[in-house]
Amino acid sequence: MRVERLPATSAPRLSDHLDIRPSMAFDRRAIEAVQRVVSSAPIRFELWDGFSVGSEGTSAVATLRLKNRRTLFSWLWDPELNFGEAYMNGAVDVRGDLRELLTAIYRALPESKRRGSREADKHDLGASRDNVHAHYDLGNDFYRLWLDQELLYTCAYFPDPAATLEAAQIAKMDRVCRKLWLTPGERVVEAGCGWGSLALHMARAYGVEVVACNISTEQIAYARERAKREGLDGRVIFVEDDYRNLTGSYDAFVSVGMLEHVGLDQYDALSRLIDRTLAPHGRGLLHFIGRDYRETLNAWIRRRVFPGAYPPTLHEVCERVFEPPRLSVFDVENLRLHYAMTLRHWFDRFEQHAADVCAMFDDAFVRAWRLYLAGSQVAFETGTMQLFQIVFNRRGSATLPWTRLQ
Amino acid sequence: MRVERLPATSAPRLSDHLDIRPSMAFDRRAIEAVQRVVSSAPIRFELWDGFSVGSEGTSAVATLRLKNRRTLFSWLWDPELNFGEAYMNGAVDVRGDLRELLTAIYRALPESKRRGSREADKHDLGASRDNVHAHYDLGNDFYRLWLDQELLYTCAYFPDPAATLEAAQIAKMDRVCRKLWLTPGERVVEAGCGWGSLALHMARAYGVEVVACNISTEQIAYARERAKREGLDGRVIFVEDDYRNLTGSYDAFVSVGMLEHVGLDQYDALSRLIDRTLAPHGRGLLHFIGRDYRETLNAWIRRRVFPGAYPPTLHEVCERVFEPPRLSVFDVENLRLHYAMTLRHWFDRFEQHAADVCAMFDDAFVRAWRLYLAGSQVAFETGTMQLFQIVFNRRGSATLPWTRLQ
Repeated sequence: MRVERLPATSAPRLSDHLDIRPSMAFDRRAIEAVQRVVSSAPIRFELWDGFSVGSEGTSAVATLRLKNRRTLFSWLWDPELNFGEAYMNGAVDVRGDLRELLTAIYRALPESKRRGSREADKHDLGASRDNVHAHYDLGNDFYRLWLDQELLYTCAYFPDPAATLEAAQIAKMDRVCRKLWLTPGERVVEAGCGWGSLALHMARAYGVEVVACNISTEQIAYARERAKREGLDGRVIFVEDDYRNLTGSYDAFVSVGMLEHVGLDQYDALSRLIDRTLAPHGRGLLHFIGRDYRETLNAWIRRRVFPGAYPPTLHEVCERVFEPPRLSVFDVENLRLHYAMTLRHWFDRFEQHAADVCAMFDDAFVRAWRLYLAGSQVAFETGTMQLFQIVFNRRGSATLPWTRLQ
Repeated sequence: MRVERLPATSAPRLSDHLDIRPSMAFDRRAIEAVQRVVSSAPIRFELWDGFSVGSEGTSAVATLRLKNRRTLFSWLWDPELNFGEAYMNGAVDVRGDLRELLTAIYRALPESKRRGSREADKHDLGASRDNVHAHYDLGNDFYRLWLDQELLYTCAYFPDPAATLEAAQIAKMDRVCRKLWLTPGERVVEAGCGWGSLALHMARAYGVEVVACNISTEQIAYARERAKREGLDGRVIFVEDDYRNLTGSYDAFVSVGMLEHVGLDQYDALSRLIDRTLAPHGRGLLHFIGRDYRETLNAWIRRRVFPGAYPPTLHEVCERVFEPPRLSVFDVENLRLHYAMTLRHWFDRFEQHAADVCAMFDDAFVRAWRLYLAGSQVAFETGTMQLFQIVFNRRGSATLPWTRLQ
């Protein structure tokens, strides 16, 4: 999250004062052009002087009131980036429910016809470290406000939609362990371990030994402290290092929520890592945010929330990660509705603690995170993004279970 | 199956008579070269005069005795094609268990490093019809000898490895229907329906209406007769036509065991067909033989058993079938061990009726089918081939089940 490092474009400027003047013909034509992009969405657009276009009265799920001309023209220039910028900076007021508004926008946007628009971000060791620090080192106190008690910051599994977030996160960890058919005494390597909950759960509940790595300093420090407190530090080793530097041979490879940060340019490195660390009978699980088709991540999310992130297609992951070392895909599960539900819980908890977050950071930070959480929930609900959990194994492994996880 | 149309290379020729002479130094060097290709396999190779190389005594799972020089040199020239030709024509005797021999060969063969070796077979309407007739129109009486009573000629699902083939084929059909979450009154289109069992099962047990197509004349005639006999001909329409000619709009699309015959050059046509026939809330299932990496099908199988067949990778199917119309993959299950078990049942039943098959065709036909069934079982057991069942849906469909099939 890099809000604080970027220029505070919400600060008043000369051009803002000019906006106090009534809107002119070209302002009105501009807002009409913006409205046409999402013309089927039940949304009202309003300028600073009250001029408005779009859905009327109660048929509108929300009204967007633009506070100044600069914002209006930034939306014409690059709406994907600047809608988020305006919301974060308080340059647009949303009257109505934010998630209903975003759902309406997702549904109304013409589907991009781009194919092969690959992200060009670099993911060498230094860039990866910067990207991770920017988001994951905001402070454990911040994440504690709105994540579950185990601090799992990835999609949960709700056996029933009414399950609590706490129960769903534990169900997710069990599901991952059971899909990997772990047995006591086995050795597991985890690439990107967050605050260490899954590694500790595997050791505690499944009797395995774990080597888990992460390049987030704060997360690793927290995970080590927890392992020590629980007396698991002899069986779970937390390594503060890049996944590409892992060594050793393991019965299982697991990575939950890292692949979307790896970047296509490093899939060959990830593939070689898996091939290098997996024993002949080994199996693995990759859990990641993906897409049904190639498309870069939303520009605003990349700028403000997840620099360097890219949600891949199944085709890209199969082609670049599994095929070169001839790993065999055993089971793929798409959990997008479960991620939408997870994000619904996070959003609600975040809103309950908005004042605390504001005291830690500022208003722009609160608005940015509100938009990111709401937008992500809606993206999974509308099928714009997917959550894939893939179980794989060495080609020809004789240790396959007869049936997949029931 | 085109055995009968090809020259009977087992007929005696002048060169065979020459082989009565003792083997010479260059014969011995040739058999040594053949043995070196699978040097880690516990197999003994023997020439017509008793000269032998390879594993000794009881350590050998099988002994291959070559009957003539022509066969020996055909193995040096193109072993992938000519091992099958020699077995089919009786030019090599196998002493020992055929499936143990094939397992040893699969395990010992150096993994091909070919990538992107795509098959160049054509699959226009005429070629597809010829390919299908060659295999599926051998006569229903033949298939009745060794398939289950429902005549399902695709991978079964064994809830338990000890289940009967009959129970496992019904469990497979139920699994397909439940993965598609069919509800009574819905309309289903089936591309490539075999003898019609799945279409009839869907209508009978799940209350749906089905349009099912197939270009095998014998299979369609049988299916129509069955529908009429069961009083289901008002709810199941069997169309003798190519899948590419299907029209209409359906709640579900299903295809079991057809994609491996479609050919990569027609995946775009299949993709457009699915996009054209699937309703906005629609979902579908593709069940097919696949691979973990790109490789053409065994040359002998393509020549004698499945002309034009190609088992694709997940990457190829996602890239060419699902991505263009932005279909969303919901669930992938790899059932290769279930196909190995299915083939084990087929092989055993085939062997029990080998005399009947010989009376219908000839010895070469029996040997060819024995090799094809045994080789297929071993290919799935050793992980050389996969069986993928993919459930997909329209992007953003709101009708997804909360959890996948338990």
